[in-house]
Amino acid sequence: MQTTFALKGNLVYTPVCGELAQHPNSYLVCENGTVAGVFDVLPERYRGIPVEDYGDKLILPGFVDLHVHAGQYAYRGLGMDMELLDWLEQNAFPEESRFAEETYAEAAYRIFVDALLHSTTTRASIFATLHRPATLRLMQLLDQAGLPCYVGKVNMDRNSPDYLRETTEQSLAETRRWLEESSDFRLVHPILTPRFTPSCTDALMAGLGRLQREFGVPMQSHLSENLSEIAWVQELCPGTRFYGEAYAQFGLFGGDCPTVMAHCVWSGEEERALIKENGVFIAHCPQSNMNVSSGIAPVKQYLQEGQKVGLGSDVAGGAHLSILRAMTDAIQCSKLRWRLVDQDTPALTVPEALYMATKGGGAFFGKVGSFEPGYEFDAVVMDDSTLPTTRTCTLTERLERIVYLSDGRPCAKYAAGRKLF
Amino acid sequence: MQTTFALKGNLVYTPVCGELAQHPNSYLVCENGTVAGVFDVLPERYRGIPVEDYGDKLILPGFVDLHVHAGQYAYRGLGMDMELLDWLEQNAFPEESRFAEETYAEAAYRIFVDALLHSTTTRASIFATLHRPATLRLMQLLDQAGLPCYVGKVNMDRNSPDYLRETTEQSLAETRRWLEESSDFRLVHPILTPRFTPSCTDALMAGLGRLQREFGVPMQSHLSENLSEIAWVQELCPGTRFYGEAYAQFGLFGGDCPTVMAHCVWSGEEERALIKENGVFIAHCPQSNMNVSSGIAPVKQYLQEGQKVGLGSDVAGGAHLSILRAMTDAIQCSKLRWRLVDQDTPALTVPEALYMATKGGGAFFGKVGSFEPGYEFDAVVMDDSTLPTTRTCTLTERLERIVYLSDGRPCAKYAAGRKLF
Repeated sequence: MQTTFALKGNLVYTPVCGELAQHPNSYLVCENGTVAGVFDVLPERYRGIPVEDYGDKLILPGFVDLHVHAGQYAYRGLGMDMELLDWLEQNAFPEESRFAEETYAEAAYRIFVDALLHSTTTRASIFATLHRPATLRLMQLLDQAGLPCYVGKVNMDRNSPDYLRETTEQSLAETRRWLEESSDFRLVHPILTPRFTPSCTDALMAGLGRLQREFGVPMQSHLSENLSEIAWVQELCPGTRFYGEAYAQFGLFGGDCPTVMAHCVWSGEEERALIKENGVFIAHCPQSNMNVSSGIAPVKQYLQEGQKVGLGSDVAGGAHLSILRAMTDAIQCSKLRWRLVDQDTPALTVPEALYMATKGGGAFFGKVGSFEPGYEFDAVVMDDSTLPTTRTCTLTERLERIVYLSDGRPCAKYAAGRKLF
Repeated sequence: MQTTFALKGNLVYTPVCGELAQHPNSYLVCENGTVAGVFDVLPERYRGIPVEDYGDKLILPGFVDLHVHAGQYAYRGLGMDMELLDWLEQNAFPEESRFAEETYAEAAYRIFVDALLHSTTTRASIFATLHRPATLRLMQLLDQAGLPCYVGKVNMDRNSPDYLRETTEQSLAETRRWLEESSDFRLVHPILTPRFTPSCTDALMAGLGRLQREFGVPMQSHLSENLSEIAWVQELCPGTRFYGEAYAQFGLFGGDCPTVMAHCVWSGEEERALIKENGVFIAHCPQSNMNVSSGIAPVKQYLQEGQKVGLGSDVAGGAHLSILRAMTDAIQCSKLRWRLVDQDTPALTVPEALYMATKGGGAFFGKVGSFEPGYEFDAVVMDDSTLPTTRTCTLTERLERIVYLSDGRPCAKYAAGRKLF
């Protein structure tokens, strides 16, 4: 592997939310896996390094999927005619139970990893299923593909069918064993994954809190997605004032270990204050929120409040793995929210959506999602010559066309300084 | 051209709104351009006719796009950060003005027709621009491609920039000449196209009404898309009780000549009653209604009321020509409408969306959009083997996957009994 090299092309990224940095026909230099800088002309000190010239194509930071269920990928686009809790019971749970079978898991995860590899996504925070061996195999496949992801073995010890439930002891023992066994992947790391409060007893949550402090791993779950779900959590956790407290009471809500919560469609003021105080990331999953009739999260407000926000495909609540699609879904939903719910909050813009899709979600992984010096070298090369038009477009317009119209398959892709294809 | 032949494959269509007819591994027989029937086993009388065997692929009726602006296709995906009236002024109008130039129009319409040809759409009701020569060239290209469409030369004589406005006399004279010159296409027919009330004086509307009665042509326009637009029409037409009356007062609102009105996002009770009474078609364009922040039309209610409803891409308010995408947009928007606006009206289902995309919109063209005997033979063959999954799917599930996940490019296509590819 070349440790120092450059890509040449039209560079576009978002160092600040809502602002596009555009460097036409420029060099993006990689040194030891991180961005050394962006240059109009290659400086003297880089004379002679290999340069991959992508001509007139666009080069964007790798995209980040902050919330996706690998164990539901085979189910995408199916059974979309119900709300969350019914959808889980009738669709997601039966599908996930099949990952107990190693051959099924192998075939399904190979399809998922191949699709992720050929998408614009370089990093993702992934739910596997509750099965330790299948989860480890998914981590191995991602590691081999060169995709630096977080992957979680799911925990569930209540309110789920017999065929997809652990005892509390099993769940904690399997999680410990999985954390121990997943320590030696090169790029892929474990993330604690209690499915959501309704699926996890207090004893399990308390045990996961202890494991988090022992292993120092991040954590992901779901929060305030659906009104029936929120009402159920209130019944299950009568001592809490809001859903987020159901996690926070066990130390599982940001602070020392990074936490990402999917959805936050219906988070109230107190919950939003705690999310902000604890630096919890919000994974906005607009398509899933449409498909399972959850609603529209106030994402523009979250950005205005200074919350940490990224985008999630939430496959298979969402049908599409493409984070470009998540960008347009987020923009379109924000327009409907403006029109139907809150005319004081304007719609999202393409630069804001690109920020969430790259640097916003990327921050969950460290210095990820930008071409600023010191950022991990994640990049995708997009060819818009396949989108014929009679117009001569500016670089901003070419970005818009790629976001709205492209099939989401880059022609080249780099993650952590390594060329994947 | 073979006048009698059959396709073999998995046939799916919607004879009744909301109900799927499924005929796995069956024959669809074409006689003289229309459907002769669907058969499990080919009847004796058809012994020896050519059979195109599409194996395990799905065969669906050709899709209908009830509202699309061919003169905006080059602009799709661009300038999506404004509402309707600003978007027209800043984006659509400058783009459409370029169709005065024949070489521009030729290049742009070739791209449009090629995209339409390779989509699932077999029939469309199309806005060209106000330029007669370019409009005729578009009709010729569509006719040569074998796509039986309605195409309209747009009329505009007020409230539009100097570079895209006719005098009333010019507009009527050019329209008459265009109607005369467009009478000899084989498959493509003219449709009167006053842009919308704000663009057309009373004198122009009255003249178009006379032309309609003289030539017996159908008519298309926009209705109740955006709240500012509706308020503007109220100012412009103080004698009308609702927007639809601004057309109806000139006889341009259904009745003897078929009429299709795009959007109807904000149609009130009186307007809906007149739409129904006059048999006006509603072209539901959900993606455009998101992109230009118009809102969500109550389409499920329209179906329940027995209105005639089809789907429109509304390119370039919509970014995508795919009516499969319009189906998912319609379903997703209906779920948000249920959640945010009206919990008494359930969301649309895939069979309802397929109905609107085929037989619902098809009725504007006559007996179109179904595999029932006597319907025009329009069909698309969809290959879902490119959408890998570990699941064994039913035919219904395969349809759902095609709707949500396919790239919208059929592997074979027939219109009016003729194979296009």
